[in-house]
Amino acid sequence: MKFVKDNVDQQIAHYQHILAERINAYTAANPNSALYAPIGYMMELKAKRWRPMFLLACAEGYGASAERAMPAALAIEVFHNFTLMHDDIMDNAPLRRGQQTVHEKWSTNTAILSGDAMIVQAYQLLADVDNDLLAPLMLLFNSTALEVCEGQQMDMDFESRQDVHIDEYMEMIRLKTSVLLAAAVQMGAICGNKSEEQQRLAYAFGEHFGLAFQLRDDYLDVFGNPNDFGKQVGGDILADKKTFIYLHTCEADGGVHKNGLLQWHGTHDPEAKITSVKEIFRASGADDACLKEIAIHSQAASEALGRMEIAPEAKIFFTALLDIVQTRTV
Amino acid sequence: MKFVKDNVDQQIAHYQHILAERINAYTAANPNSALYAPIGYMMELKAKRWRPMFLLACAEGYGASAERAMPAALAIEVFHNFTLMHDDIMDNAPLRRGQQTVHEKWSTNTAILSGDAMIVQAYQLLADVDNDLLAPLMLLFNSTALEVCEGQQMDMDFESRQDVHIDEYMEMIRLKTSVLLAAAVQMGAICGNKSEEQQRLAYAFGEHFGLAFQLRDDYLDVFGNPNDFGKQVGGDILADKKTFIYLHTCEADGGVHKNGLLQWHGTHDPEAKITSVKEIFRASGADDACLKEIAIHSQAASEALGRMEIAPEAKIFFTALLDIVQTRTV
Repeated sequence: MKFVKDNVDQQIAHYQHILAERINAYTAANPNSALYAPIGYMMELKAKRWRPMFLLACAEGYGASAERAMPAALAIEVFHNFTLMHDDIMDNAPLRRGQQTVHEKWSTNTAILSGDAMIVQAYQLLADVDNDLLAPLMLLFNSTALEVCEGQQMDMDFESRQDVHIDEYMEMIRLKTSVLLAAAVQMGAICGNKSEEQQRLAYAFGEHFGLAFQLRDDYLDVFGNPNDFGKQVGGDILADKKTFIYLHTCEADGGVHKNGLLQWHGTHDPEAKITSVKEIFRASGADDACLKEIAIHSQAASEALGRMEIAPEAKIFFTALLDIVQTRTV
Repeated sequence: MKFVKDNVDQQIAHYQHILAERINAYTAANPNSALYAPIGYMMELKAKRWRPMFLLACAEGYGASAERAMPAALAIEVFHNFTLMHDDIMDNAPLRRGQQTVHEKWSTNTAILSGDAMIVQAYQLLADVDNDLLAPLMLLFNSTALEVCEGQQMDMDFESRQDVHIDEYMEMIRLKTSVLLAAAVQMGAICGNKSEEQQRLAYAFGEHFGLAFQLRDDYLDVFGNPNDFGKQVGGDILADKKTFIYLHTCEADGGVHKNGLLQWHGTHDPEAKITSVKEIFRASGADDACLKEIAIHSQAASEALGRMEIAPEAKIFFTALLDIVQTRTV
């Protein structure tokens, strides 16, 4: 496959297409039983497939075939969806990608056990790689998977803590969302047999990209246009979620905004709560601080990308994706 | 390490000792945090360590060092304990090995997430094997892990079904308990670089051993001496559990005993229930049928063992373990 130069949408569609084919083949091969049905359901929910797409693009950019990288790409995507299935239980979430979550549609026990089967299948997919890749990919996959669990643990701990520092929040989103994207990009470099230095740059690119992406998500959840943004705008506010914006507001100007926020904790008229909390966020300068932090991580991602010795087409592709993160409204 | 000929207890103690050392080293290396504390708790509960012991003994019997087999042995034991942690949530079990279960001591969310971290660590331990072993061990580990999930799914399905056939029960216990022991023994053969035929015999030995062991457990739960048996005798009866003995009773003599059993379903005076149901079991000949089934699988295990080309000391060791299964009262 050759990169479709300068046409990012087409390139994204291409990766989504080949991934959809392989993901469908994987779920279709599973037995038709109570254990596997929720796996098929979960994997077929509409998703962007960012992680495996980054992995394939990086591998191809480094000269490896998409076929060589495919087992790792599928493993990463199945692992990611496994974490969503279990996180949804822990977060008591009714919906995922606009559809019923597995524990709601079936049961908590089903979501636990099918999730367990799913992580095993992630390893099964990974084990399909060329023999020279298995050990290095396993090493990275395992340490990353543990970090994702650590991130979810921090996220749950934050719910009952009133003293979360913004640095802890950044570490939490790094573990919970960035490291898996970072590992995906590095795996692309591993598939291309690249040096440790190139692998480190690939990881750094994915890590900062992931942070910028998550912060943009936090920003849009508050300040997004409801007509554009897929999720409910203000959802984090209604849930009193300790996001970057929330924590920045708590810490800004010697903490003068914190009491204002705490007064809106709990259940209130939703519209009034969203309007008022947004005003407090803005008064503290949290909106600008968040945009600044996004710019910092986008810049860091861009610098790492600049030093990655990948094909020019791949560089154009990743640069365009980085632009999307910085400017996206959806 | 040389086998301590003819002294099985000493040999068991030896394996338990070296496994305890390595398991303690593994849990001690984990961060001291909410995510990892339940893993340490679970791994340090008193356990017999049958699966890793079989793996080490088979590997040594086939001429491999215990050190070569150790990563797989640890992986198997950590995986087994992960399944217990999640099964206890699904089964709503208050106690495990006489201690509070993880979801009781901490919370369901903790037991889900720490269990997830635990299965990742099982793979992390496995990835420590010599490079030539990683791919073949992964292949067997993955397919076995999925079968264990399938067995747990069947077990849960049985609870709400009144038409479970005894063959389905045998398949359920094969998947839920036997295949992991079978895989452990086969992994020992893989560590010894043995032929597929020897691996197949090793697997068959473990599989039949596991079935005999589980059936003996079912038997002792009903007919065991309360002074010897570790668990509460009659626990399965009180829970209306569809064991071999229960299902045999339902099917024996054209089904004439089934109504008698159904009359005792649900909550009754526990002592009266246990006494009466035991009488129905005996009247149907289920006690003898269970002992006969144990003998069949012990015999099959013994035949496979006889054809395994392992050191005589290892054969003596496994034969002695097989005797324990057939005669054990605890």
